[in-house]
Amino acid sequence: MNLVANVYRGDAVESTHLGHVAVVDANGNLLYSYGDPQRQTFARSSMKPLQAIPIIETGTADRYGLEPADLSLCCASHSGEPRHRSRAMEMLIRAGQPEETLQCGTHVPRDEESYKELIRAGKPLTPVYSNCSGKHSGMIATAVHMGEDVATYHLPEHPVQQRILEVVSDLTSYPKEEIVLGTDGCGVPVHRLPLANYAWAYAKMAKPEVIDNPLRREAVVRITDAMIAHPEMVGGNKRYCTDLMIAFEGRIFGKAGAESVYCLGDRQTGIGIAVKIEDGGPRAIYAVVNEVLRQLGIGTEGPLAKLAEYTNPVVTNMSGTVVGRIETRFALERQQASLRV
Amino acid sequence: MNLVANVYRGDAVESTHLGHVAVVDANGNLLYSYGDPQRQTFARSSMKPLQAIPIIETGTADRYGLEPADLSLCCASHSGEPRHRSRAMEMLIRAGQPEETLQCGTHVPRDEESYKELIRAGKPLTPVYSNCSGKHSGMIATAVHMGEDVATYHLPEHPVQQRILEVVSDLTSYPKEEIVLGTDGCGVPVHRLPLANYAWAYAKMAKPEVIDNPLRREAVVRITDAMIAHPEMVGGNKRYCTDLMIAFEGRIFGKAGAESVYCLGDRQTGIGIAVKIEDGGPRAIYAVVNEVLRQLGIGTEGPLAKLAEYTNPVVTNMSGTVVGRIETRFALERQQASLRV
Repeated sequence: MNLVANVYRGDAVESTHLGHVAVVDANGNLLYSYGDPQRQTFARSSMKPLQAIPIIETGTADRYGLEPADLSLCCASHSGEPRHRSRAMEMLIRAGQPEETLQCGTHVPRDEESYKELIRAGKPLTPVYSNCSGKHSGMIATAVHMGEDVATYHLPEHPVQQRILEVVSDLTSYPKEEIVLGTDGCGVPVHRLPLANYAWAYAKMAKPEVIDNPLRREAVVRITDAMIAHPEMVGGNKRYCTDLMIAFEGRIFGKAGAESVYCLGDRQTGIGIAVKIEDGGPRAIYAVVNEVLRQLGIGTEGPLAKLAEYTNPVVTNMSGTVVGRIETRFALERQQASLRV
Repeated sequence: MNLVANVYRGDAVESTHLGHVAVVDANGNLLYSYGDPQRQTFARSSMKPLQAIPIIETGTADRYGLEPADLSLCCASHSGEPRHRSRAMEMLIRAGQPEETLQCGTHVPRDEESYKELIRAGKPLTPVYSNCSGKHSGMIATAVHMGEDVATYHLPEHPVQQRILEVVSDLTSYPKEEIVLGTDGCGVPVHRLPLANYAWAYAKMAKPEVIDNPLRREAVVRITDAMIAHPEMVGGNKRYCTDLMIAFEGRIFGKAGAESVYCLGDRQTGIGIAVKIEDGGPRAIYAVVNEVLRQLGIGTEGPLAKLAEYTNPVVTNMSGTVVGRIETRFALERQQASLRV
């Protein structure tokens, strides 16, 4: 049983979470793992930094003068704060497209105040509030720049999505024809491949000198530099991705995905880490990521201490009283395997 | 691996859920199980029907003229709809207590329209909106009726909670001194004991003639009759507990609990069923309960068909398109064990 975390009420276990971890270097060596590092996994929004790469490679970013903060927003599952919405709208305006072009659908944003303002004003939710509106704005701008059909940018056969598939296959070193596609929560294709290959992709992004293609290498550096320079765009107030990148001061870039996935790259060691909680529930994932970092000795000299509220999550009742806690429970196993086929 | 459900994106498994099931008769025979029927479990709100019993046994219900709909609300995790809030307030008024006496804390109610009305009016959330406000109103009325301290009704040592502990121990046939206590989401004590013992308690409530004490037997019948007569009070619009009881037209009473617990009693066969999803996530529990009923042949002649949306949950994206599904994956095992010690 690949237990990763117990949820306690008082001192008694109430629920448990299983999970999988893969730690891979930029040359495709699986260094550490827990559970099944080959678990076939939809990385969901953890793939956003890869999905953003064609925005640069096609010249879209330069054509529309996208700033690092815009590129960071293209990698975001943002909270729908005003700063997120205004940048997404601005990208659409530069590409000459109305908000209705966004195919990401709508959901209640994490930023409660933004939602309450809408309700007070009697206005409906619109797609720019979606956590994916930055990614979609980047996709739309790319389609416009390339002279491609804009209305169907989200469909698997569209060149926008085909370019992304090529990037995902290349950086994960996983054959395109073996990547199973699903539909993501925001309507675009989502890719399913082994967890360890996501870790490998993030390792390559952390150590871009292993990327042979100079244009891709440059795009990877611009994207990860943008995330690190503007972590507030990747998540928002009190969001783990944002706080992780702030705490590590340029060393780490990381991105969460739905159904409890996390991927990060460490520029100092050049390794990539990918984590999946088996049940898809979100509450244990950040504690597990922090524990992986601790076991690897990454950030133990200071940065992890700044993330203590994520390392030791508490369970509170409706009055705010602490009535339980979440504790991680696993030990990484040393591996000596190459992912190269 | 006690898998109970797979979550698919397209036709590929994205996440999985483990779980435990116990099916017990009123004499304490474990008839069927899956996973670990002895799993130590906090039943959370699945205990509300038991927690309501002292309201009748103490004479509180008669003293304040509580109607069956009020008693049903005392067993509820309601959605905070106007009909729920008004009955909870009315119980407090009859007991001469203000809303502030409620110690259940506040949370955003499931009834979205009620929440939006509050925001539009610029009013804060208050405890009566809590899904537990019916249970707490009943506890407060009991303390007032018994001449006990009202401010501390939620604490473990208070007579209100001590009477409940005695009821839980009696109906689950589990020694009081072995019941571990935690604090529930609404601030009152919550009990931890083996899953099978919850099923036994629900079996006794489904077949109350096995209960020797005539006052307790009468209280059990009044409570379960009330839930069955007013299922809309136990949950609300589009809530499983409500829809289950409506579909079974008086045969079944059931109650969900946080961290993915479900307990129900079947008056026709006199059995009780208790289910716990290991990770505590809510999305698979109702499908699992329906599948347990199907495997037992309960409701296959019609009622289960009315609950199809719970049996076959779909995964939709933000645009409302179906992109996946949840499928149960388990087979109950026949047992021949007595829980009697």
